[in-house]
Amino acid sequence: MSSRETGEAYDFHELRKKRVEEIEQILTGYLPKEEGYQKTIMEAMAYSLMAGGKRLRPMLMRETYRLFGGTGTVVEPFMAALEMIHTYSLVHDDLPAMDDDELRRGRKTTHVVYGEDMGILAGDALLNYAFETAASAFEEYPKESLKIGKAIGILGKKAGIYGMLGGQVVDVQKTGHAVEKEVLDFIYALKTGALLESAMMIGAALSGASEEEIRLVEKAAGKIGLAFQVQDDILDVTSTAEVLGKPIRSDEKNEKTTYVTLLGVRGAEQVVEKESVEAIELLRKLPGENPYLEWLLGELIHRTK
Amino acid sequence: MSSRETGEAYDFHELRKKRVEEIEQILTGYLPKEEGYQKTIMEAMAYSLMAGGKRLRPMLMRETYRLFGGTGTVVEPFMAALEMIHTYSLVHDDLPAMDDDELRRGRKTTHVVYGEDMGILAGDALLNYAFETAASAFEEYPKESLKIGKAIGILGKKAGIYGMLGGQVVDVQKTGHAVEKEVLDFIYALKTGALLESAMMIGAALSGASEEEIRLVEKAAGKIGLAFQVQDDILDVTSTAEVLGKPIRSDEKNEKTTYVTLLGVRGAEQVVEKESVEAIELLRKLPGENPYLEWLLGELIHRTK
Repeated sequence: MSSRETGEAYDFHELRKKRVEEIEQILTGYLPKEEGYQKTIMEAMAYSLMAGGKRLRPMLMRETYRLFGGTGTVVEPFMAALEMIHTYSLVHDDLPAMDDDELRRGRKTTHVVYGEDMGILAGDALLNYAFETAASAFEEYPKESLKIGKAIGILGKKAGIYGMLGGQVVDVQKTGHAVEKEVLDFIYALKTGALLESAMMIGAALSGASEEEIRLVEKAAGKIGLAFQVQDDILDVTSTAEVLGKPIRSDEKNEKTTYVTLLGVRGAEQVVEKESVEAIELLRKLPGENPYLEWLLGELIHRTK
Repeated sequence: MSSRETGEAYDFHELRKKRVEEIEQILTGYLPKEEGYQKTIMEAMAYSLMAGGKRLRPMLMRETYRLFGGTGTVVEPFMAALEMIHTYSLVHDDLPAMDDDELRRGRKTTHVVYGEDMGILAGDALLNYAFETAASAFEEYPKESLKIGKAIGILGKKAGIYGMLGGQVVDVQKTGHAVEKEVLDFIYALKTGALLESAMMIGAALSGASEEEIRLVEKAAGKIGLAFQVQDDILDVTSTAEVLGKPIRSDEKNEKTTYVTLLGVRGAEQVVEKESVEAIELLRKLPGENPYLEWLLGELIHRTK
């Protein structure tokens, strides 16, 4: 990926807004429509999926697809599927038996609106529907079956016990306990990193990238995930509740081990810098280029909220 | 399916035991093995998946695969995947926010052993791992990609909001309310019927059955599912707790509408008879034959426990 063309920052900010809107249209298009007695669960799915957010995962997926020259729409069911998986994980995280959160992005959480039983079922429904949506690509794009099969494999692995869910399990078990750096790295790599990896790997796989290229993208995405999460740790102590839109110093209150507690703010900043530089360098080894993607990664890593 | 060879009932009973053992070996083989920090969740998955049971869904899948002449092992990851989905639905049904059951088949339920948070996550993990396991078939059997893609599509649809999960949602919402026959049929068709349909449809799809044959199998399986569920309603009032291994007259206690409350025992028995005869007749239209499958269906429908 070349950095020669970085474009006007203003244009990229506008482009990002436009991309988010496009993604939300795609998500809406892939929500279930055929209503019957099970109407409530469909409402709960739409309520949680269409609650805003950065749409980071589908955006990274599509930009990586474009980086490798992908121009089709086969990536769209996977963009929707991955955002459904991300959303189900938030719905279940917010449940009373988990983090017991009543608000997310300023709105009532799903189980508060629809009841705890429907909160569990809405999460289940989104996870299942993610795979239904991904599998619908076989019918829509029969000629791309092999790539679709590979993409479903990546989606499953990165979402499950060797990916996001595995990180979540260890995070839940370690809550209230100090953890070593090795365990913290495991949690960050799986809980935050895995879905970002899957976003970029699926984008690459669907555009026909080689195994070697997919591995390189996985490695870069892992570094982006770590930088992203450590930046989160930093903002929790350096930002304000007004800017962040959520309470600050929550890690301290919850006695959570973070990169800041382990290395201090300065040490954590160095990690963000190192990992993000290495990620960009890895991506620049690839033949294609996508200046917007490169700008976006910088924005995410160096964000102030 | 011909009924000319019905064999010795004794042999079929023995064969059924052998088949259950084989299925349990397949399930064990597909459980995650690579352990790390997320060891607990793997234990919880194994605890719930290997808790016994009739193994009806994988058995019907394999026997339908054989009915259409299938002789390979590509059906095995799908047998495991479907049983994982059935198991996750039980784990989540048992949660305090759902049925709040502490015992299942005489053992403590998953959330009682591992905690409510791990109960939710173990269910999520099984659902996700089901699709990972099914998708692993793409790597193991690359030449069968098209059939595998079709089978994953069936699995997703029949497990989700248009299948089992949709039935569960309506069942939860209607608990404590009298329901009309139309709604009861909807719940039975989805909550009980859909996974049985997927079992037989996937068996057919993986052995290369035509679309028309798959539709016929779906229809037969739907009738088997209804007969099976109505038999459940009958046993709840005609059997004893000793024979059934669970409390009887639970539907009455929970004020549940059933086929027995709507039609009486005799009326319900007529439905079981009609649906099961029609199912067998449908299957007999198919070119292949599988006398064990025909025997098994009779056993399930006319079971006394």
